[in-house]
Amino acid sequence: MKVFRYDSVKAEDVVAEGASKVKVRWLITKEMGAKNFAMRVFEVEPDGYTPLHKHPWEHEVFILEGEGQLFDGEKATPFKAGAVIFVQADEMHQFKNSGKKLLSFLCLIPHPKE
Amino acid sequence: MKVFRYDSVKAEDVVAEGASKVKVRWLITKEMGAKNFAMRVFEVEPDGYTPLHKHPWEHEVFILEGEGQLFDGEKATPFKAGAVIFVQADEMHQFKNSGKKLLSFLCLIPHPKE
Repeated sequence: MKVFRYDSVKAEDVVAEGASKVKVRWLITKEMGAKNFAMRVFEVEPDGYTPLHKHPWEHEVFILEGEGQLFDGEKATPFKAGAVIFVQADEMHQFKNSGKKLLSFLCLIPHPKE
Repeated sequence: MKVFRYDSVKAEDVVAEGASKVKVRWLITKEMGAKNFAMRVFEVEPDGYTPLHKHPWEHEVFILEGEGQLFDGEKATPFKAGAVIFVQADEMHQFKNSGKKLLSFLCLIPHPKE
């Protein structure tokens, strides 16, 4: 059993084409003993965004603070703290901070299949 | 892609031996198309608690608001909003609200193996 503050985990810059002003903290990982899925928290500064992309695994997301838009390549859906977002495998998606404060959200993913 | 408020999902009483003053909202489920794991939020009133129990699947937990204690049958570890908790399969665990306000936390679990 492990109990720790989310901010005791180092925030790393997300270095990816199409990402701007985004950091990630890997909170619960396979290396820690999680057998099925991983918990990360993303922190996006004002005007920042994650890449517009898709991949063959789902996202289970909970918005912790701030406000933003979920862009699917065509339309943008606004969200704010308290929103739940489910992105299915192979759906295009991008998270943008549309507010004046930090946007932070949990994003959980299954481990890659081996 | 789905975007909705957590509180648009009905809170159901947790009716289980050893549970008191606990409600759950099933936010992201297999029925919704989530292939690997489920997202729930638990809301525990002051003096409330979840059952002291164990089971052969893990919990990935994020404390959203309030404060409480994680009890393993022998010792209690305090936590508050912003804490991350990882409970491995087959570890005894109980969440108790030790504060004067609502305790709420996300708790994600893998789907049962078929």
